Amino acid sequence: MKGIRLRRNERVDALEHLGRRIIQREGGFRFSMDAVLLAHFPRYGKSCRVLDLGTGTGAIPLLMAEGAAYVEALEIDGEMAGMAARSVLLNGLEKKIRVRRGDYREIRSLMPPERFDVVLANPPYGGAADGPHAQGGRAVARQEVTATLSDVVRAARYALRYHGKFAMVHRPARLAELFAALAANQLAPKRMQFIEPRAGKSANLVLIEAIQGGAPGGLVVLPTLRVYGEDGEYTPELLEIYGKNRVES
Amino acid sequence: MKGIRLRRNERVDALEHLGRRIIQREGGFRFSMDAVLLAHFPRYGKSCRVLDLGTGTGAIPLLMAEGAAYVEALEIDGEMAGMAARSVLLNGLEKKIRVRRGDYREIRSLMPPERFDVVLANPPYGGAADGPHAQGGRAVARQEVTATLSDVVRAARYALRYHGKFAMVHRPARLAELFAALAANQLAPKRMQFIEPRAGKSANLVLIEAIQGGAPGGLVVLPTLRVYGEDGEYTPELLEIYGKNRVES
Repeated sequence: MKGIRLRRNERVDALEHLGRRIIQREGGFRFSMDAVLLAHFPRYGKSCRVLDLGTGTGAIPLLMAEGAAYVEALEIDGEMAGMAARSVLLNGLEKKIRVRRGDYREIRSLMPPERFDVVLANPPYGGAADGPHAQGGRAVARQEVTATLSDVVRAARYALRYHGKFAMVHRPARLAELFAALAANQLAPKRMQFIEPRAGKSANLVLIEAIQGGAPGGLVVLPTLRVYGEDGEYTPELLEIYGKNRVES
Repeated sequence: MKGIRLRRNERVDALEHLGRRIIQREGGFRFSMDAVLLAHFPRYGKSCRVLDLGTGTGAIPLLMAEGAAYVEALEIDGEMAGMAARSVLLNGLEKKIRVRRGDYREIRSLMPPERFDVVLANPPYGGAADGPHAQGGRAVARQEVTATLSDVVRAARYALRYHGKFAMVHRPARLAELFAALAANQLAPKRMQFIEPRAGKSANLVLIEAIQGGAPGGLVVLPTLRVYGEDGEYTPELLEIYGKNRVES
């Protein structure tokens, strides 16, 4: 364990990516398929500086480290930031990844503007307002979600250099608000992909890549990705991204 | 022909829907799969008053007539409006459908506001600005497209009653502008469907239904519709909408 100490209820899970491992908590927040899909979505080069807003236990930086020059990860929760920082040490990536405890709503006090080529965010989706029937009654929950959405996009815009890329995963239900937040921050969506659980089911996730200061138009909607095939197994397309190592090992 | 006169270069085509027929011009504008998909997309009841903005040769009203109380169709081009009007007579639908020659950019001088339950539009897509690489050099074409998009959405908003539905078909490439135009006109997108030519290809059409004055959020992205299957034939889902009559007859 290279001297990395696990706290009570913590365990080490495989990231299924280059043999990397991640410290997570029993019964606590654990990284999801969404984070893996997001980490693989944006196109960027090895010289890029990457920022992950709200990194949780740090899955996204651990998945992106070898493809970028430097990854910074911001996390408001002290315990999760601690786990992420220890996972970085556990994988010997301390020269590539820096985990910082901080609130992206106060990003202006945390870093100078326009220092990153790529910014990612896998924010809370706000379950209360996801469905088509959820817009009645749960106004407070919805406002929180909207605030989070708009906060995270604003933080991305602050951190991104001109023509830098912002990549996000969210619920299709909130797409109109997401587009509005992007437009309000001069972020032009250029690539989008919907994730359907299986054939005949509505998409439950959307990946979006936007260019800061990009011209309007020219959005490419990539082929829809299905998670499960007719046989109930992961589709080849999904395994290509999510479970390659799992299958081969 | 019930005394309907065909002009030179005109012909009568099957609409493949309840035996209906449509007058179109050899080598001129002809109705497309896009119009058929759009006509079948919105959900509406038999008491609904429907308006089609830029009806062309009138395919959409001819496809929707039996499901609605009344369909009005606006077309700026006199020849096409004439063909659409004669097609209405040809199908004996003159009590259901009214074709008017008119410019939807001047809709305020053509009709009182908020008289329709459903408004549809299959506007020109503006080929020059469709692709991901088209946002360089063709500023004039792009401006024309953007103007059309924004014009047609504004006309829909004027014609729709509160909580009425607007349904549109367009290119995914212009989705960000489309969402911006909807938001600017208090139209909340609630249902969306992407059309992929075949598996593994990016979507080249998107259908959207928006509610005038609707709350934000709650957008449902329906299962992606593929036009061609692995066998090179229309998929069952597509035939269900597009070619049912063709297959059965």
